[in-house]
Amino acid sequence: MTLIGFKKYHGLGNDFIIIDGRFSLLPSSIVSAEKHLVISLCKRHYGIGCDGIILILPPVAGGDFRMKIFNSDGSEPEMCGNGIRCLIRYILDDSEDDFVDSFIVETLAGKIQINIEEGNIKVDMGSPIFAPEKIPTTLPINERGIPQGRITILDQDFLVSACSMGNPHAIIEVPTIKNIPLYEWGQKLETHPVFPKYTNVHFVQVKSRSEIEILIWERGCGPTLACGTGACACLAVLAKLGKCNDLILVKLPGGELEINWPKMKGSIFMIGDAKYVYSGSFNI
Amino acid sequence: MTLIGFKKYHGLGNDFIIIDGRFSLLPSSIVSAEKHLVISLCKRHYGIGCDGIILILPPVAGGDFRMKIFNSDGSEPEMCGNGIRCLIRYILDDSEDDFVDSFIVETLAGKIQINIEEGNIKVDMGSPIFAPEKIPTTLPINERGIPQGRITILDQDFLVSACSMGNPHAIIEVPTIKNIPLYEWGQKLETHPVFPKYTNVHFVQVKSRSEIEILIWERGCGPTLACGTGACACLAVLAKLGKCNDLILVKLPGGELEINWPKMKGSIFMIGDAKYVYSGSFNI
Repeated sequence: MTLIGFKKYHGLGNDFIIIDGRFSLLPSSIVSAEKHLVISLCKRHYGIGCDGIILILPPVAGGDFRMKIFNSDGSEPEMCGNGIRCLIRYILDDSEDDFVDSFIVETLAGKIQINIEEGNIKVDMGSPIFAPEKIPTTLPINERGIPQGRITILDQDFLVSACSMGNPHAIIEVPTIKNIPLYEWGQKLETHPVFPKYTNVHFVQVKSRSEIEILIWERGCGPTLACGTGACACLAVLAKLGKCNDLILVKLPGGELEINWPKMKGSIFMIGDAKYVYSGSFNI
Repeated sequence: MTLIGFKKYHGLGNDFIIIDGRFSLLPSSIVSAEKHLVISLCKRHYGIGCDGIILILPPVAGGDFRMKIFNSDGSEPEMCGNGIRCLIRYILDDSEDDFVDSFIVETLAGKIQINIEEGNIKVDMGSPIFAPEKIPTTLPINERGIPQGRITILDQDFLVSACSMGNPHAIIEVPTIKNIPLYEWGQKLETHPVFPKYTNVHFVQVKSRSEIEILIWERGCGPTLACGTGACACLAVLAKLGKCNDLILVKLPGGELEINWPKMKGSIFMIGDAKYVYSGSFNI
């Protein structure tokens, strides 16, 4: 039996156990994240209970360190905005050097640039993609360069805009997010044929040019507390439609994020924080 | 800031963090279980995440130790069958003395006798109560001494038997527990006027004279993985109705318990185990 130490962090209610493998070798079952091990550790009620596991590993491609992340079903996503904020908060909490204010994290989605600004963690989320075939969607490009069209489900008519941040997002503006039947609509929109690889779905209430509030239906998951790429996709679409500024506050069910797309060119930045919850150890 | 150590255990998926205050003083906010503290610790996604918190304290009434238990909403139940098994498993894991095979635990419900039998934890759950006014229920006593009657909800007719194990239970025998619409039926039965203080509800499939399988709707909670007093109440009612022996295996959604009501007299015993999950510490 090996004793493995971990720390629990959450970003907007998205909770991860972080295992630090920078300075000591981790058992192979952890590093290779054997599926049954990940599932049993993540299981609430029976295991530690979390949305995923993050391993911090030594760099292999010139970054400061490498992030490996596993979902609670054992799958390995390429990147996770909430997860990377948790990892950086861990690194900051762990470090005795307060002067480091930028990091390069190696992920399956490539190297991610992180900056610390006024105590918050600013993540370069990459550029939004509007090319329909890359999202992918069969919606046609509208006059503002956004894939957009009307979809009817359950006798309801929706004006749907699409954008990819590495993963597909369907954005629907609504007068209010109160009383949205998220289960019924989310499921139908996620799997609508205009999105051949399915899609994340966001219902967006524009509160002002600098504030929106969203409800999230994640592809393959259902309702979630937060979705970093979704918050970015909402800004990208709304800014292109001329409905908001290039820096907005996004209210998600789990908390708030600042999203910035400077002059609507290049990368979108997500600014937020993550919180330490507790330390623990388990045997494998 | 004070660092508090804990260990996580679960009994049939009912998970608790156990804080040991036998040998050292705990901070007053922990001992008095300030409501906001309990709620934030128990909250999944944002806190440690658990169904409740168990404190082990020095005895004050001649027992081996005292159990204080708090639900995730901050309330303090008198007793909890899954919780007390977790506490005893903790004590056994922690002890270097393998020869102790009985304990007396002080709880709000009085002193509870525990015996260790073949590695399993046998808990004296007290005697079943059939007096309608003590359950309480308005159902009349039938010829076998059980409060019983027909209830109609949602155009469905149910034969409901009632029993108290300190808390009220409604027991309904069904041909199969598959496809029971637990949310619809549970809610309506829990709050039916024949149970003035509401009731826990159990749908029971009798598989043989020595095995039953149950679905649980807990009062104020909804569907749960396990309910120790409910398993005892099911045996009490079914044994009195002549449908099962005095020792049965009860299959619950979260796992199995053995329930024994020797010669249908006096106390009912619950025999099961609990499992260590991990150790941790948090700051308050």
